Amino acid sequence: METTQSAPLDVERIREDFPILQRRVGDDVQLVYLDNAATTQTPNQVIDVFGDYYRGYNANVHRGIHHLSQEASIAYEEAHDRLAEFVGASGGREEMIFTKNTTESINLVAYAWGLNELGPGDRVVLTEMEHHASLVTWQQIAKRTGADVEYIRVDEDGRLDMDHAAELIDEDTQMVGAVHVSNTLGTVNPVADLAELAHDNDAYIFVDGAQAVPTRPVDVEAIDADFYAFSGHKMAGPTGVGGLYGKKEILEDMEPFLYGGDMITKVTYEDSTWNELPWKYEAGTPLIAEGIAMAEAADYLDELGMENIRKHEQELAEYAYDRLSEFDDIEIYGPEPGPDRGGLVSFNLDSVHAHDLASIMNDSAVAIRAGDHCTQPLHDKLGVAASARASFYVYNTREEIDVLIDAIDDARELFS
Amino acid sequence: METTQSAPLDVERIREDFPILQRRVGDDVQLVYLDNAATTQTPNQVIDVFGDYYRGYNANVHRGIHHLSQEASIAYEEAHDRLAEFVGASGGREEMIFTKNTTESINLVAYAWGLNELGPGDRVVLTEMEHHASLVTWQQIAKRTGADVEYIRVDEDGRLDMDHAAELIDEDTQMVGAVHVSNTLGTVNPVADLAELAHDNDAYIFVDGAQAVPTRPVDVEAIDADFYAFSGHKMAGPTGVGGLYGKKEILEDMEPFLYGGDMITKVTYEDSTWNELPWKYEAGTPLIAEGIAMAEAADYLDELGMENIRKHEQELAEYAYDRLSEFDDIEIYGPEPGPDRGGLVSFNLDSVHAHDLASIMNDSAVAIRAGDHCTQPLHDKLGVAASARASFYVYNTREEIDVLIDAIDDARELFS
Repeated sequence: METTQSAPLDVERIREDFPILQRRVGDDVQLVYLDNAATTQTPNQVIDVFGDYYRGYNANVHRGIHHLSQEASIAYEEAHDRLAEFVGASGGREEMIFTKNTTESINLVAYAWGLNELGPGDRVVLTEMEHHASLVTWQQIAKRTGADVEYIRVDEDGRLDMDHAAELIDEDTQMVGAVHVSNTLGTVNPVADLAELAHDNDAYIFVDGAQAVPTRPVDVEAIDADFYAFSGHKMAGPTGVGGLYGKKEILEDMEPFLYGGDMITKVTYEDSTWNELPWKYEAGTPLIAEGIAMAEAADYLDELGMENIRKHEQELAEYAYDRLSEFDDIEIYGPEPGPDRGGLVSFNLDSVHAHDLASIMNDSAVAIRAGDHCTQPLHDKLGVAASARASFYVYNTREEIDVLIDAIDDARELFS
Repeated sequence: METTQSAPLDVERIREDFPILQRRVGDDVQLVYLDNAATTQTPNQVIDVFGDYYRGYNANVHRGIHHLSQEASIAYEEAHDRLAEFVGASGGREEMIFTKNTTESINLVAYAWGLNELGPGDRVVLTEMEHHASLVTWQQIAKRTGADVEYIRVDEDGRLDMDHAAELIDEDTQMVGAVHVSNTLGTVNPVADLAELAHDNDAYIFVDGAQAVPTRPVDVEAIDADFYAFSGHKMAGPTGVGGLYGKKEILEDMEPFLYGGDMITKVTYEDSTWNELPWKYEAGTPLIAEGIAMAEAADYLDELGMENIRKHEQELAEYAYDRLSEFDDIEIYGPEPGPDRGGLVSFNLDSVHAHDLASIMNDSAVAIRAGDHCTQPLHDKLGVAASARASFYVYNTREEIDVLIDAIDDARELFS
């Protein structure tokens, strides 16, 4: 078990890149940031992109002949290649669309493909652990088109019931939507197996990788995903930008989503034709600084090594799981530690509501999340309205988990 | 004519806030940036927001109990109030949705309202000078719903034919879409008159204010706009964020657009209900840093004074128009200088294609735009494929326009 004992990352050095981790909050207490599944913090290397961009070469892209526009265009377009490479898309920029977040990426496909292709009798298969971004979007597009949505069962251990998946994914199925790493249970789902089931039935698969891309090596081609989405702000990048990978032949066939400048070739008062990939899907002035900063975040993470990051996440999750398991009054959700559990632990303390727990944690400057984590139906299934969630990233330590455990002790005492 | 003779802004001091203006490009030549209708430059005050945010209080908003999340939430939510105030919306944040750009703002309404409300026999009335963001979007949503699109004629002087507007806007009309300030002709359209025509026929009006909000005082309530859109990157703010004003009662009735986290109240596997305004229209992790930075841009512009900015724009446009008018081989598009012309001038030089002209300008480090400026049908009407456009902002000077004129001389010589 050497890999889970020795930290593969030099966390002390990494922490120097994240000035916010030095913050003291409340009664001048050192911040312990364990809310990384909501948003990760941002290293100086990524923050500096904004100053460099706006002080150096801010300009609108694609359409400009002048120096600044050329510089901005090259950086913005190369950022697409960089993110394509980061998730294993060999097609480069043509297979990488920048959106404002994972949610927009899912909506893009649900509207552009779903509105045109789904109809009564068609089936969309999701998992019971889908984030609202996927669950609500497909549910509402299905309502509009007359298609049905079915959900692959989550078993007692927090894993997908793959027999049920094989039952549900049939010849009527047009789309399978699956979260790669659950933001609530931490489960790493067998998305390649789901992709195979989908393709055996001539369906597409859309993988929500918002929690996966930041935390482990992702290879969309090994998964054989048709679509794969992620967000910048969860991978040490900025807010306001996300990525959508799509297979080139599908993106070429699909109708556009947002209409406007940059996504057209020819416009008359009567009709319009569309630009080449990926710009066909990027209407209006894009998220230029944000996209360039997200590419810098990919560089930062690659330098640490995605496999090292995965090991670090797994080790911290295991340590947190083990420490929380010491207490009889704590219920932990999701699978036991191991390669199919990501770096987060959701739990409840018998005697204290999750929100109260998070509030008491906050008094100790421990930042965790309490709520339904945008998975209300899954929480209904778990029989709770909310849970507390601690989630870890490259800069977190075992000592911070010890502070979390001490703060839980304080809460237990306060409410006993 | 005192107001157009004396610069109401202290341009020399303003230029110190924009470090990019000191850039030297090409053969070490001082940059002359006249591409502000594509994107404006960004002052230090706005750039610094990014460092302050990511080093100080980066966190996901709305759902968090911990300190950082509370700080980020307050700043992000107050940014909505600030932008609402900036455009004269008395309803505050409930009437101000943040989107990624003006294009998304238009698509939001076209999809959320148009897909549900338009049908065969219904009419959408646009202007012939609409930007592709409005023209293509309404055209495609009309195609999908069976509605018709009609275009208000632009007359010889580059102004809307308001008699034609009164003819077109009839009882079948459901939506009027009008650009406030044309990004090609510079025309300031009588949008309040168009709003009256729309409302007399029980239609809504959507005003595209991308070029207006940065350059003049805007009061959406005085216009009586139902929807009004703008972008951060054209008002000294960042890329990746825009605003959509909507009347509260309309936004309350309208269906949502993007589905996902933050925009819901209750979700089951079967159906969902929607959050309160404006969050109902902001799905997923929002453009947090970008929104806060856009509010800082509004502060920056208000400190200069929007009426001062308007006068400065008008003065520079008049000076550029007059200087360009000295030459018989230059055709200028749009109305003569005056209060109904914004701070940009599009033109063509007889002997030189606009792209070649922009390219030669670039050798002199003069950044202008050449192309169709996302108004292809209008260019078809003007009988040209492209035009050159010089556009001005708070930091531009008459001396820079003189450099532009000299560069045109060089081009004329080169091609003669």
